[in-house]
Amino acid sequence: MPELRRDPITGRWVIISTDRARRPTDFIRESVIIKGNAFCPFCPGNEGKTPPEILAYGRNGGNRDTPGWSLRVVPNKFPALQIEGGLDREGEGLFDRMNGIGAHEVIIETPDHQKTLATMPEKAVEETLWAFRDRMLDLKNDRRFRYVLIFKNHGEPAGASLEHTHSQLIALPIVPKRVLEEGDSSKHYYNEKERCIFCDMIRQEIDTESRVVTMNESFIALEPYAPRFPFETWILPRQHSSAFENMPAPYYGSLAKLLRDLLARMDAALALPSYNFVIHTSPIGEENNDYYHWHIEMMPKLTKVAGFEWGTGFYINPTPPEEAARFLRDAH
Amino acid sequence: MPELRRDPITGRWVIISTDRARRPTDFIRESVIIKGNAFCPFCPGNEGKTPPEILAYGRNGGNRDTPGWSLRVVPNKFPALQIEGGLDREGEGLFDRMNGIGAHEVIIETPDHQKTLATMPEKAVEETLWAFRDRMLDLKNDRRFRYVLIFKNHGEPAGASLEHTHSQLIALPIVPKRVLEEGDSSKHYYNEKERCIFCDMIRQEIDTESRVVTMNESFIALEPYAPRFPFETWILPRQHSSAFENMPAPYYGSLAKLLRDLLARMDAALALPSYNFVIHTSPIGEENNDYYHWHIEMMPKLTKVAGFEWGTGFYINPTPPEEAARFLRDAH
Repeated sequence: MPELRRDPITGRWVIISTDRARRPTDFIRESVIIKGNAFCPFCPGNEGKTPPEILAYGRNGGNRDTPGWSLRVVPNKFPALQIEGGLDREGEGLFDRMNGIGAHEVIIETPDHQKTLATMPEKAVEETLWAFRDRMLDLKNDRRFRYVLIFKNHGEPAGASLEHTHSQLIALPIVPKRVLEEGDSSKHYYNEKERCIFCDMIRQEIDTESRVVTMNESFIALEPYAPRFPFETWILPRQHSSAFENMPAPYYGSLAKLLRDLLARMDAALALPSYNFVIHTSPIGEENNDYYHWHIEMMPKLTKVAGFEWGTGFYINPTPPEEAARFLRDAH
Repeated sequence: MPELRRDPITGRWVIISTDRARRPTDFIRESVIIKGNAFCPFCPGNEGKTPPEILAYGRNGGNRDTPGWSLRVVPNKFPALQIEGGLDREGEGLFDRMNGIGAHEVIIETPDHQKTLATMPEKAVEETLWAFRDRMLDLKNDRRFRYVLIFKNHGEPAGASLEHTHSQLIALPIVPKRVLEEGDSSKHYYNEKERCIFCDMIRQEIDTESRVVTMNESFIALEPYAPRFPFETWILPRQHSSAFENMPAPYYGSLAKLLRDLLARMDAALALPSYNFVIHTSPIGEENNDYYHWHIEMMPKLTKVAGFEWGTGFYINPTPPEEAARFLRDAH
């Protein structure tokens, strides 16, 4: 019997097909294999092919935009938003618009073209997280912005246009709808119970065990109760924390360890899948609160999303999260 | 300069890239070409290969599940939901679940394997709309259901697994999130203004002209102000109407004409694109109201949706709706 499950945070119902549950081997997909045979603007020596760097780690006295870096942040060469200008918010009858002002940056996670977040040294993954933080803190000084969104598209089916491992950042003058909804819903829960809904969920998941993939001292990776996609996985700090960028320093190392562990499990269980992840943190100006719990949403790209899903916000997921968690727990 | 636009109904902001606007020829995609060389369970003579039919039009005295039909509705052979059983709603701590009870049916729109909704005779498209209505009215008698969702996946990239033209219907014990949000938002607008927000939008769009694709006596096809996808197009009744299935009889012919016209324009402008559409109508039990306006959302599948979109409900659309409307207006 299939099941209908409701996500307690967004209120979204999903169908979980239990009868014909799909196992990792049932998904037809391309593995993300790094070919490395084309010219790569993200490789050392080609620094001149990207816009001038905003931030670099690891360079020891060398000049900007030269080799020697271990991580590099540059503006996106084809930005979705433009950094200069005023917002010029205005109405057009029923409609609202503003100028597409924002930042769109690329975090080149390593100089090594052959590596991925799953195979990079733990220290390099940690550096990536520090770069996310540094850029967020810097961009938050710009009064035009309300949200800094960090995301990664890994593999061409997930939307990556260059194979050299990188993440992206978009600073926005608005708060994205999904984040806004999560915030409203968590606030509502907090007003009723004086507890964070994510903290309650984590406690329940640790008790239940069946949806937990892996944990360490500070973080937990779990399959949400009502996932939209097969093998959708969330990473959350185990203690309440409302903003990614305000975590105490030791947490970044702990998160790097868990993220790398999860990605290695996904690579093993799902044969090097393409994936997307996105960091959900509190909006600018609301960083310190008791109701919202920042987290990472990781979505391997295993299925096609059809009209049904687009048009309704209602999803059919062919793999129960309990089974996905078991496969990822057992993966090496 | 790119633009940020807000959809007045859902509150969703989208980025419209105006600088590097993509024209129909800029999208790389597969055209939907009907090959017709595999065994097809939807073709006449193979009626025994589908579950027993629920409804058929056009048969003149012949037996059930035999050739002679012009349209046929059958249960989905691999249903996402199960028709028999009780809902057994229950909580699991924070979480809510119920049995996956529902109907999942397939509307085989024509016996002709070579046709599509764009190339079928107008009369056959009208029959398809009547079948949607007949099935909705029938399923609404089942007290377990709250919503009947009609949708179509055309072409393999849009999720169609069989090429013989067909639509699908899912009856659900819940109202999908997107529809619920639209309803809440329209109700809110109505409470303030005593006007339907969709009616206001249609009036403004007819005045503005730039986003209108085509109109007839009863229906309008337009590009929404803040579309998520390039060439996303909505079809709405020009006069207020809250439920697809309660339209007066003459409207079905008028809608068939407009739908066929729009699909032919899309085929011409976008080279036989794959697409999804979904009908948004009022939930069961709220069919007659002054605030919600039923409509069809049509989404050609031209771009890859990346992590950014999934994780945030925030979209980047590389084609301004005014340009999309112009291309579709000019298409023959």
